[in-house]
Amino acid sequence: MIHCPDRQGILATVTEFLNKNNGNIINLDQHVDRVEKIFYMRVEWELKDFAIPSEKIGEYFDTLIGSKLEMNWKLYFSEDIPRMAIFVSKMSHCLFDILSRYTAGEWDVKIPVIVSNHETMRPVAERFGIAFEYIPVTADNKAEQEAAELALLKKHKIDFVVLARYMQILSKDFVSHYPNKIINIHHSFLPAFAGAKPYHAAHARGVKLIGATSHYVTSDLDAGPIIEQGVTQCSHVDTIKSLIRKGRDLEKIVLSNAVFKHLQRKVLVYNNRTVVFN
Amino acid sequence: MIHCPDRQGILATVTEFLNKNNGNIINLDQHVDRVEKIFYMRVEWELKDFAIPSEKIGEYFDTLIGSKLEMNWKLYFSEDIPRMAIFVSKMSHCLFDILSRYTAGEWDVKIPVIVSNHETMRPVAERFGIAFEYIPVTADNKAEQEAAELALLKKHKIDFVVLARYMQILSKDFVSHYPNKIINIHHSFLPAFAGAKPYHAAHARGVKLIGATSHYVTSDLDAGPIIEQGVTQCSHVDTIKSLIRKGRDLEKIVLSNAVFKHLQRKVLVYNNRTVVFN
Amino acid sequence: MIHCPDRQGILATVTEFLNKNNGNIINLDQHVDRVEKIFYMRVEWELKDFAIPSEKIGEYFDTLIGSKLEMNWKLYFSEDIPRMAIFVSKMSHCLFDILSRYTAGEWDVKIPVIVSNHETMRPVAERFGIAFEYIPVTADNKAEQEAAELALLKKHKIDFVVLARYMQILSKDFVSHYPNKIINIHHSFLPAFAGAKPYHAAHARGVKLIGATSHYVTSDLDAGPIIEQGVTQCSHVDTIKSLIRKGRDLEKIVLSNAVFKHLQRKVLVYNNRTVVFN
Amino acid sequence: MIHCPDRQGILATVTEFLNKNNGNIINLDQHVDRVEKIFYMRVEWELKDFAIPSEKIGEYFDTLIGSKLEMNWKLYFSEDIPRMAIFVSKMSHCLFDILSRYTAGEWDVKIPVIVSNHETMRPVAERFGIAFEYIPVTADNKAEQEAAELALLKKHKIDFVVLARYMQILSKDFVSHYPNKIINIHHSFLPAFAGAKPYHAAHARGVKLIGATSHYVTSDLDAGPIIEQGVTQCSHVDTIKSLIRKGRDLEKIVLSNAVFKHLQRKVLVYNNRTVVFN
Repeated sequence: MIHCPDRQGILATVTEFLNKNNGNIINLDQHVDRVEKIFYMRVEWELKDFAIPSEKIGEYFDTLIGSKLEMNWKLYFSEDIPRMAIFVSKMSHCLFDILSRYTAGEWDVKIPVIVSNHETMRPVAERFGIAFEYIPVTADNKAEQEAAELALLKKHKIDFVVLARYMQILSKDFVSHYPNKIINIHHSFLPAFAGAKPYHAAHARGVKLIGATSHYVTSDLDAGPIIEQGVTQCSHVDTIKSLIRKGRDLEKIVLSNAVFKHLQRKVLVYNNRTVVFN
Repeated sequence: MIHCPDRQGILATVTEFLNKNNGNIINLDQHVDRVEKIFYMRVEWELKDFAIPSEKIGEYFDTLIGSKLEMNWKLYFSEDIPRMAIFVSKMSHCLFDILSRYTAGEWDVKIPVIVSNHETMRPVAERFGIAFEYIPVTADNKAEQEAAELALLKKHKIDFVVLARYMQILSKDFVSHYPNKIINIHHSFLPAFAGAKPYHAAHARGVKLIGATSHYVTSDLDAGPIIEQGVTQCSHVDTIKSLIRKGRDLEKIVLSNAVFKHLQRKVLVYNNRTVVFN
Repeated sequence: MIHCPDRQGILATVTEFLNKNNGNIINLDQHVDRVEKIFYMRVEWELKDFAIPSEKIGEYFDTLIGSKLEMNWKLYFSEDIPRMAIFVSKMSHCLFDILSRYTAGEWDVKIPVIVSNHETMRPVAERFGIAFEYIPVTADNKAEQEAAELALLKKHKIDFVVLARYMQILSKDFVSHYPNKIINIHHSFLPAFAGAKPYHAAHARGVKLIGATSHYVTSDLDAGPIIEQGVTQCSHVDTIKSLIRKGRDLEKIVLSNAVFKHLQRKVLVYNNRTVVFN
Repeated sequence: MIHCPDRQGILATVTEFLNKNNGNIINLDQHVDRVEKIFYMRVEWELKDFAIPSEKIGEYFDTLIGSKLEMNWKLYFSEDIPRMAIFVSKMSHCLFDILSRYTAGEWDVKIPVIVSNHETMRPVAERFGIAFEYIPVTADNKAEQEAAELALLKKHKIDFVVLARYMQILSKDFVSHYPNKIINIHHSFLPAFAGAKPYHAAHARGVKLIGATSHYVTSDLDAGPIIEQGVTQCSHVDTIKSLIRKGRDLEKIVLSNAVFKHLQRKVLVYNNRTVVFN
């Protein structure tokens, strides 16, 4: 995945580099932001027959192309399985949705640990054979507990974190360790009803659609780059309770879709917005 | 249409009244807000064979039922065709959508006049044979011009007003003459991006869905009771221009649906929210 | 729940009956099919203070109203928790979705048994502590095996059956034991692509939307009354594999929504169509 | 727009050709069908500074690249405004929607003529200042009348035809003159309810969603390559009349979206399916 200042010939340069070295392109997607003049690209090629050995690709690419064109680029190998941690509080719907996909082998991911500020979901974690760590957080112990969490993530070699309705606000410091690597689900169509109790707010406002938004967590609460959004119809018949019920289905599907796109390395962040390749 | 404090037996009382007087119910819809303890009801019956003459129905109903049960009620006759005025600025998409439905006879409505603060849409009005009144509004002449508009609405016996992308804010005084009788289309999924330039705001925020909201105009800008909302998907590929283009289709359909529901007298307003009967 | 030939005064008669006997109506929904001249109604009232004892309500209602008006009616008590069996083959997504709602207490239901023609899902059933019965079906042993299944359902006092991607066609005889009580999910927007391999058919046809349909099973395969449908966008980029992946999310949500409506006794079947009350 | 057998290096070859000749790429989209092994590509570049004169681009491209790689390719210049004819019967909603966009300057298109088998829409055509040709078709005169239509299209130098709810089946011969250049709107979610009266069929089947499909016309009725599809929710409350009403909104938006994509030359047809570039 590449993004860099747009100029003529970038695409030709990159595809020629792959072509000359016998790299068969499986997938290529590019996007140019004409206003900001940024070029974004995602290209996937076969390593079989590729002239440059895997461990040297980064170096060669950077020397021959990347640094010349001022590129920000990242190289991923599809055989590297990312390691994900789940943070959860008391609600089970997103957790179950993720674990059922995990168990069914839908996703190429490893989930070594589930972290929670409540014991409620321990039986679920055990049922799926995943380590469960209870780390209660209060206003007083937040700094230490986050340190414990970071140590845990390090120990489990976690690549990214999914907040599956984790009802705690992470500190700026915590977030800075995983930039664009913490995925949250907000139970509203952001930026409407940011913050707590969005279904109550939606009900009071009498909206006819409710939504859910999955985004990367930044230090600015509920304002990080949006990965995926969904909506569903509602009406005057809906009570707060039925909005919450409808919302659960949205939340779990929207979050899981966002995680899936992240896992496929299809999401690129720039200027607090995402490019989500196809 | 009725709303009143909820208590046991309201439904039985009303249906018995109709039944005893030989009124065949064509349509009945009711809703109880258990939190606010309000009963809402819409009932439609045939006047043929109805024992009470049309001009006396209101009096009888109020004496026998309405005042006893503290009802707010309204009686409409389906042969009364409402009279609607359209306010428009320079954009044509909502106007064309309304006029094409009008011309095709989709709606039971009369449109005697189109009002605008620009001359741009005059040819469209003329093409459809509808009077066009040019009433330019500035900060200085707003009070007089609104007085002129109110006089015009009175002259044309207008029942309700549709703001088909009318880019002027109506004064509280103007709005107070048509409570829950001015329908606006806001080019965003309210309450996200209230105010001006919502597509620019949506683009800057990087949302994955854009919306449109039709609501009754109240003195509080963009905060009136919502009648109808719609959304459509967008992505990083969308420019502000393409968001605006996609938005136009949403706006015209959402506004026309809201107008249609209003015309069928299916919208009841209470506590700044709507009950939209089926 | 009631359906009967439409005539004047049915609604007044029923609501008066409840009102006079001190039954506070919590929910009432009615629909008249003007073409077929059928009246449909669902009414929910509180038993506390109701003058007629629970075990006599049916008799009284039938004598005083039901038989006079040629009604088909059914009486349910909300404290009666229905008993549901799940039939499944090898795919887990619908099963997991149902079990996660069950475990979370989202639904008022008991699930005493899961039946399968494969052993694949046994670990999932065990993980959730539900009995799992392996009943393999071949062309040769179908009659006996269905007899065994029926015995099992009887033993567990099953009220209705959910086919959570059960890849076997049930015989007419089997279906006749549970009329409008077997809920299936078809992985297509019926009636398009009825039968096997709908995603392959959708891909070959180049559709831009794929769907899923939940319906009651009748003797006519994939033609039973539809309870719920959903769609999601697709494009030329989608392979059969990605259509199947997108389809899984649709299927599980559509099936669970259908089951939820059935559990709330909001679905009434007539003339191979459903009335799904709000 | 290009499609050809997939092989390594096509993308590099084409982008290098543009790059070397100073063609700044504005937009590039490519897709590989891995099953059929076909490469699809759409590339848009600026002619300003391009080394090859416009009238020679085709020749050069074919000699240097196209014929070597067995490409099917087409070259369009964005300053060439396509010429479109509308065929219509008695219904106005799609026609109005197209003409309102045309009048508003939304589309880069010329509409020199509207053809109809009824006089009904003549006043609409006149209102928009477009020639209206009444060509009634019966079983007996079909061949001659189609010949007259073809002559008319030739006279007006028509590039493509839009059937805006034209209730006549075009002969194979007529279609063969405009391959993948006749756009139809079918008032159903194809392939469900192909043929006449789809809303009646949908109502009888009790579906919970209705759809509309825009496709290129081929000799096989309602089976041509799909460009765009849309759906909207319905329920037991909907009558055939209300389904038709809801369907009209779908039809006009889906058809206009399809026409817009065709106008932008974003639709490529292969094997009776479309690739619709972003």
